Amino acid sequence: MHSFTEATAVQPTADGFRADLDPQWAVGDKLHGGYLMAVVARAVAGAAGDAHPHPIAMTTTFLRPPQPGEATVAVELLRAGRSTAQYRARLLQGGEPCAESLVTQGVLDDAAPWWTGLPAPELPAEDECLHLPSNPPGAAFPVHLLDVVEHRLDPAGLGFAMGRPSKDGLVGGHLRLADGTDWDPLSLLVALDPSPPVSLALGIQGWAPTISLTAYVRRLPAPGPLRMTMRSAQVTGGRMDETALLWDAKGALVAQAVQLAAVRP
Amino acid sequence: MHSFTEATAVQPTADGFRADLDPQWAVGDKLHGGYLMAVVARAVAGAAGDAHPHPIAMTTTFLRPPQPGEATVAVELLRAGRSTAQYRARLLQGGEPCAESLVTQGVLDDAAPWWTGLPAPELPAEDECLHLPSNPPGAAFPVHLLDVVEHRLDPAGLGFAMGRPSKDGLVGGHLRLADGTDWDPLSLLVALDPSPPVSLALGIQGWAPTISLTAYVRRLPAPGPLRMTMRSAQVTGGRMDETALLWDAKGALVAQAVQLAAVRP
Repeated sequence: MHSFTEATAVQPTADGFRADLDPQWAVGDKLHGGYLMAVVARAVAGAAGDAHPHPIAMTTTFLRPPQPGEATVAVELLRAGRSTAQYRARLLQGGEPCAESLVTQGVLDDAAPWWTGLPAPELPAEDECLHLPSNPPGAAFPVHLLDVVEHRLDPAGLGFAMGRPSKDGLVGGHLRLADGTDWDPLSLLVALDPSPPVSLALGIQGWAPTISLTAYVRRLPAPGPLRMTMRSAQVTGGRMDETALLWDAKGALVAQAVQLAAVRP
Repeated sequence: MHSFTEATAVQPTADGFRADLDPQWAVGDKLHGGYLMAVVARAVAGAAGDAHPHPIAMTTTFLRPPQPGEATVAVELLRAGRSTAQYRARLLQGGEPCAESLVTQGVLDDAAPWWTGLPAPELPAEDECLHLPSNPPGAAFPVHLLDVVEHRLDPAGLGFAMGRPSKDGLVGGHLRLADGTDWDPLSLLVALDPSPPVSLALGIQGWAPTISLTAYVRRLPAPGPLRMTMRSAQVTGGRMDETALLWDAKGALVAQAVQLAAVRP
């Protein structure tokens, strides 16, 4: 099993970056969207260098699911400013585009926020939460991601597993990297796409493929587990939105994301 | 004064679409981000045709502010599927890129949602709200946009105008197009970037330039005014997030957006 750093490593080449997509970071037979964003973001950080080391805002549109194995990331500078630089990044496999991203790079810090309107949520302690297994009895497919990203979730949002779907479309809990390392701006991109999707909590079976995901990384996270909440506003027209929020172990809001996913109620 | 349809008109050319950016759709001397997105989205809709007529998800990264006048939109197909098609669109002026967008096109309807977790908010009636003027006494710059998009806002969020900034980072109210037409999926992109920014409600003076804005259009809106709320989760590191939500006159959630903007507290 590879660490997050190993699984997202990229090598500069003549025309971009080469990645080796790791089959462990997957949901069913599909590589995890947040993992793919982290691989792309590592390539962008390689292009941006020390002046703009961190992803500040990143949107990825998913075009076709890549397979584990070799892939390339093409990174193009759109504009370099003093405090931020903006990039287009494309994930390709066998010459076919798999995902395209717009990335704003900058510098994050952990100074006290000027204002915050969302204090960390009240959640049961980690040892009162359910540590999700990657291959639970009765599941439609294994979620290998859960072996590398530990999800300890509030049982209140997991009634669906007992045939009692949630009515409020809310999932929450604690996240840790199984390799024992602390969260960083790149791995936060993985945590912003947690399991299970809200659709499952609402009783909708099956995969909920992400159409587009937008992540804002706000601060450098403190060491320790993340507190995560994810909720949906609406499921309509075969599509669901999800908003994920992450607070670090000191209670600071460190990252947020929205995604639009396809569902089949 | 041009209608929304006139102000966002585009003409197909040999290598894209030509637009004539309208100085009326501006905040101070900067063209409005939601307006620029609507112009780009109209070009994408022209390229997508009847198979995928509506913007479903759109992210725009703003690179440099264009001036009123001639601009071009270059539209490139990334992937065409059955239910959706994905595009890259670039707004250029004088050959310089001003904004780049990722757009997922599809078909919207107004069928009852399968599930909704955000009922329309309680707001004072339109005639109990404050109709924002475009050039109020003491303002740092005129907001010409307010002459074409009528904002009737809940006075609770406008204490900043009396020197009493909000503590909760929330703005809400009712929006109508001044030209008397009803909202449609393109004009919703304008409404998703309302005035004032939450930063102003929090007491931070000055322009809050959008770094990146992500809009999801969820349904065809019913005729009549929109109910809008916008809130921020955090202001830190010189950046603010804003989440805008729009419900139509029948109380259905029709669109949502997040943006990251630069601020100087």
